[in-house]
Amino acid sequence: MEISAGEQFTEKLSGSMTSAAAVAPPPPNSLSIIPLGGMGEIGKNHSILQYDQDAIIIDCGVKFPNDVEQPGIDLIIPDFSYVLESQQQVKALILTHGHEDHIGSLPFLLRSINPPIYGSAYTLGLVRSKLEEHKLLSKADLRIVHPGDRIRVGALVVDFFHVCHSIPDGLGLAIRTPVGTVVHSGDFKFDSTPVDGFKTDADYLRRLGEEGVLVLLSDSTNTEHSGDTPSEREVRPGLEQVFSLVKKGRIISTSFASNVHRFQQILEVAHQFKRKVATMGMSMTYNMGLAHELGCIEAPPDTWVSFDELKGLPPEKSVLVCTGSQGEPMSGLSLMASGQHSHVQVRPGDALIYCARVIPGNERTVNKMVNDFYYRGAQVFAGGRHKVHVSGHGYAGDQRRLMELLRPRYFIPVHGEMRHQVSHKQLAMEAGLSADRVFMMNNGDRWVFDGKQARLQGMVAAGEVMVDGKGVGDIGDVVLRDRKHLSEDGMVLCVLGLTRKGEIVAGPDIISRGFVYERENEDVLEEARNRVRDSIQGMQTPDHTPGWDEVRAIVSQALKRYFKQKFDRRPMILPVVMEL
Amino acid sequence: MEISAGEQFTEKLSGSMTSAAAVAPPPPNSLSIIPLGGMGEIGKNHSILQYDQDAIIIDCGVKFPNDVEQPGIDLIIPDFSYVLESQQQVKALILTHGHEDHIGSLPFLLRSINPPIYGSAYTLGLVRSKLEEHKLLSKADLRIVHPGDRIRVGALVVDFFHVCHSIPDGLGLAIRTPVGTVVHSGDFKFDSTPVDGFKTDADYLRRLGEEGVLVLLSDSTNTEHSGDTPSEREVRPGLEQVFSLVKKGRIISTSFASNVHRFQQILEVAHQFKRKVATMGMSMTYNMGLAHELGCIEAPPDTWVSFDELKGLPPEKSVLVCTGSQGEPMSGLSLMASGQHSHVQVRPGDALIYCARVIPGNERTVNKMVNDFYYRGAQVFAGGRHKVHVSGHGYAGDQRRLMELLRPRYFIPVHGEMRHQVSHKQLAMEAGLSADRVFMMNNGDRWVFDGKQARLQGMVAAGEVMVDGKGVGDIGDVVLRDRKHLSEDGMVLCVLGLTRKGEIVAGPDIISRGFVYERENEDVLEEARNRVRDSIQGMQTPDHTPGWDEVRAIVSQALKRYFKQKFDRRPMILPVVMEL
Repeated sequence: MEISAGEQFTEKLSGSMTSAAAVAPPPPNSLSIIPLGGMGEIGKNHSILQYDQDAIIIDCGVKFPNDVEQPGIDLIIPDFSYVLESQQQVKALILTHGHEDHIGSLPFLLRSINPPIYGSAYTLGLVRSKLEEHKLLSKADLRIVHPGDRIRVGALVVDFFHVCHSIPDGLGLAIRTPVGTVVHSGDFKFDSTPVDGFKTDADYLRRLGEEGVLVLLSDSTNTEHSGDTPSEREVRPGLEQVFSLVKKGRIISTSFASNVHRFQQILEVAHQFKRKVATMGMSMTYNMGLAHELGCIEAPPDTWVSFDELKGLPPEKSVLVCTGSQGEPMSGLSLMASGQHSHVQVRPGDALIYCARVIPGNERTVNKMVNDFYYRGAQVFAGGRHKVHVSGHGYAGDQRRLMELLRPRYFIPVHGEMRHQVSHKQLAMEAGLSADRVFMMNNGDRWVFDGKQARLQGMVAAGEVMVDGKGVGDIGDVVLRDRKHLSEDGMVLCVLGLTRKGEIVAGPDIISRGFVYERENEDVLEEARNRVRDSIQGMQTPDHTPGWDEVRAIVSQALKRYFKQKFDRRPMILPVVMEL
Repeated sequence: MEISAGEQFTEKLSGSMTSAAAVAPPPPNSLSIIPLGGMGEIGKNHSILQYDQDAIIIDCGVKFPNDVEQPGIDLIIPDFSYVLESQQQVKALILTHGHEDHIGSLPFLLRSINPPIYGSAYTLGLVRSKLEEHKLLSKADLRIVHPGDRIRVGALVVDFFHVCHSIPDGLGLAIRTPVGTVVHSGDFKFDSTPVDGFKTDADYLRRLGEEGVLVLLSDSTNTEHSGDTPSEREVRPGLEQVFSLVKKGRIISTSFASNVHRFQQILEVAHQFKRKVATMGMSMTYNMGLAHELGCIEAPPDTWVSFDELKGLPPEKSVLVCTGSQGEPMSGLSLMASGQHSHVQVRPGDALIYCARVIPGNERTVNKMVNDFYYRGAQVFAGGRHKVHVSGHGYAGDQRRLMELLRPRYFIPVHGEMRHQVSHKQLAMEAGLSADRVFMMNNGDRWVFDGKQARLQGMVAAGEVMVDGKGVGDIGDVVLRDRKHLSEDGMVLCVLGLTRKGEIVAGPDIISRGFVYERENEDVLEEARNRVRDSIQGMQTPDHTPGWDEVRAIVSQALKRYFKQKFDRRPMILPVVMEL
């Protein structure tokens, strides 16, 4: 089947993005690849591939903020400057799979441009719900592709092939360009016994390798792990073991909301142990419903029920499959842990099966939740230790196999932190590539191949844009620095009315937040007021009447010194001086 | 050798602690044990053991705050209320070893009471430097004990025995009371090939078991790990392997600052590979110096040099041993990673040996640091993967062995999170204890044994006290909630001068911090001022002149609504209204 890429672009460039740096255009008759997100860091995958006047975007992911360094930030999206600048060339947006770090920034990009979006049925099903939420669905041009499909985008031809990952319907890309074939692995592992029987297409990859591959871009996440990634099927005995141990209690299982094959296996094991299963959490319920609709789930008879139906069953007959694996505070799972869930009470004998990995940064929160389950008398069966979780990203063995099949001329590690990319480079070199054929790239670096040789040439605007509420990119380092200061030391406000001559006629009033508990420190606030009064009185001399800036500085100084001496703390001080 | 516990208490009770709840005294002729910190959570170990009028405190640890939930907090110490209330009975403070989570709160307790402090030479060496820093050393009564020593504390007799841990000179306690023997394991592992040849005293433990043990309190941290903890000696081949791989670069090693046996092994391997070693970081340098002075380190000839001497050597001859394993932002190691260290520049070919574990909560920071080392071209050899780190806490196998040796009548798991204590309870039950002989305790629970049977009876004041700068316990939930709010949304201050009739005669001025970048949002601030003006004008009716509280509420409401609508953000709003 062939699909031809459509015309384009119903919308004007939005003004809300950061302005792009002027940059030299790519050289003519050459292929360029630019990572715009996702290199050097997990998440936010987004890159552009261009040959002359034809460009495609691959993935459009989101990254989640670091609560300590980026407090209050909701999401981090890529800087779209270069994509917007190149919008005349961008003729397609291709999604490898439906995880947030590959599709999450779409709504923000689609506010400005509207290229046809290609992805598998399951991926686009997830995209559809996301765009609906952002009221962008009606104008989006979504085009379903299947493994084996080919699309033409000007001079570029894209072939799709199936890859196994922790979400159904993952795609890898073979992009034929006038100067050679680019292979993008997507996020993948080889899995010789996948739950749906649908293996990563090694035969196709071997044929690609025989035809000749110019450059491989592949997923580095798990390259520090030796051996092969365990098959998703290997979770099955772990689940059976847990089900056989939990005789009387309810089983609560948590996993990532798109891990359909995990859910399939839980359904099968539940059926075997005569329990029924319901989902909990909007995304879990939506995602599994979609998977079922698309035929990605084969539910055993009489097993998958609604939450309402499950509530009526005794604990030993029920399995709840929930979101909330990262300890998200308002998730059903967190509420169960803290005893605040309105429908589910965790009791001694219940079990939590934690079928997920802890995303770095969430360890403390998840730990607390797990401890709370123990505290309520539940048993917790977790991750690798009880063999109820395996990764969806290829280990070193999978990566080695991919390189042996494809034997690419060049290699670019993608989608992983620097440490993973370095491991991946070492693997490529063990597989026979010389160091000058492996390119370690930063976001914005342009990789160029002119038909003869590859090099890095120039850099385009790229980076992170923070989203807070409706604001996109309006929060920068100054605001974050202030937030951090406020969070660590709080603030003290001093309000003061002065005559032009510098006599105090109102205040000083002191108001603080996040500093000390005011009710228990009235003497401190009184002394602070005295210090302000003294500092104002001390500043006047017969031949000098200070200006307002000077007054504010003197007040700040007096309070800063007092709080340092009294508490060894440095609150943010805001003097407000009014002329009365 | 026998030492008799001294008289007491040169100081008055400090008023800075939280007030203790009134609680019934322990029943006469009974033994009570109360965990006051360290149960349910790693860190902050602190408990009290009492028989009639004689009480001893065991350990006095500190806990480190969670940056997200407790921003700006420096330390968390135990609530000392009950200890202060019992100060007439407290006749000794015994330290099992010198880690911060066992000695870190001492300076805060010693402000109020001054019992004799017993610990090993190395432990008290660390305590000495800590108390000196807090200007408390001169009056502290420090008494060195050795394995095999016995002290009498009224009706209690304490025997000390050696245990292996990731710090030298660890002690376990056998406390003979009129109603039976209490064994406290300290933090320990069995290590059949310790670096200093000094094994955990299994023979002594067997004898104790033969005499009869009433209750065992033991370290739960690693009970989820099956098998035996690897010996510290097993790190040696890993280190040799790394040294043989790093041909030309500098070797930088990081570990916990009191891991003396790790340092000893690095010295030995460095000597073997003809490199010299220097320490970096005040605590590392002090701790290793102290260990050397006390004979805990046997340095090979011509290997351990000063940092100044090391600077003059070529990279391939040098090894730097640093603190900073947790990514502490101002540590030498972090500065090297970010390229800001004034003396050490990390170059391609250098290597970082990460001989530590990442403390939960620090994953992102440590990851970033490790990635930065890779970014500079260094290789990183880490933790268990390259076999350069082993734990100092006993695995399930070690715990099982301890229980087999001691065969205690009762068991209390300590020092670990709830999940670890639950595992530990399971181990105890596998070892033959019935469930009613294993006590899962919360901080403040009183375990009582009256000579016949044990039970939990009552609860004393216990909990966490936050330290911020010089303030101890003056920051509570309200202040933390404000800090969190400020950090996530920032603040907006609106200053306004009104006549008594409600006419605006000054302002409204808007000042914000951590909200939006003001320079780029002048139109927003202008609109905010308009909204405030409109809201004030709208509030007056002929028959109602609003009060100041009402004015403030109306201003808040207007701004809150505007920012929600404009940005979907909820900054903290502080209206300041002055009557002019």
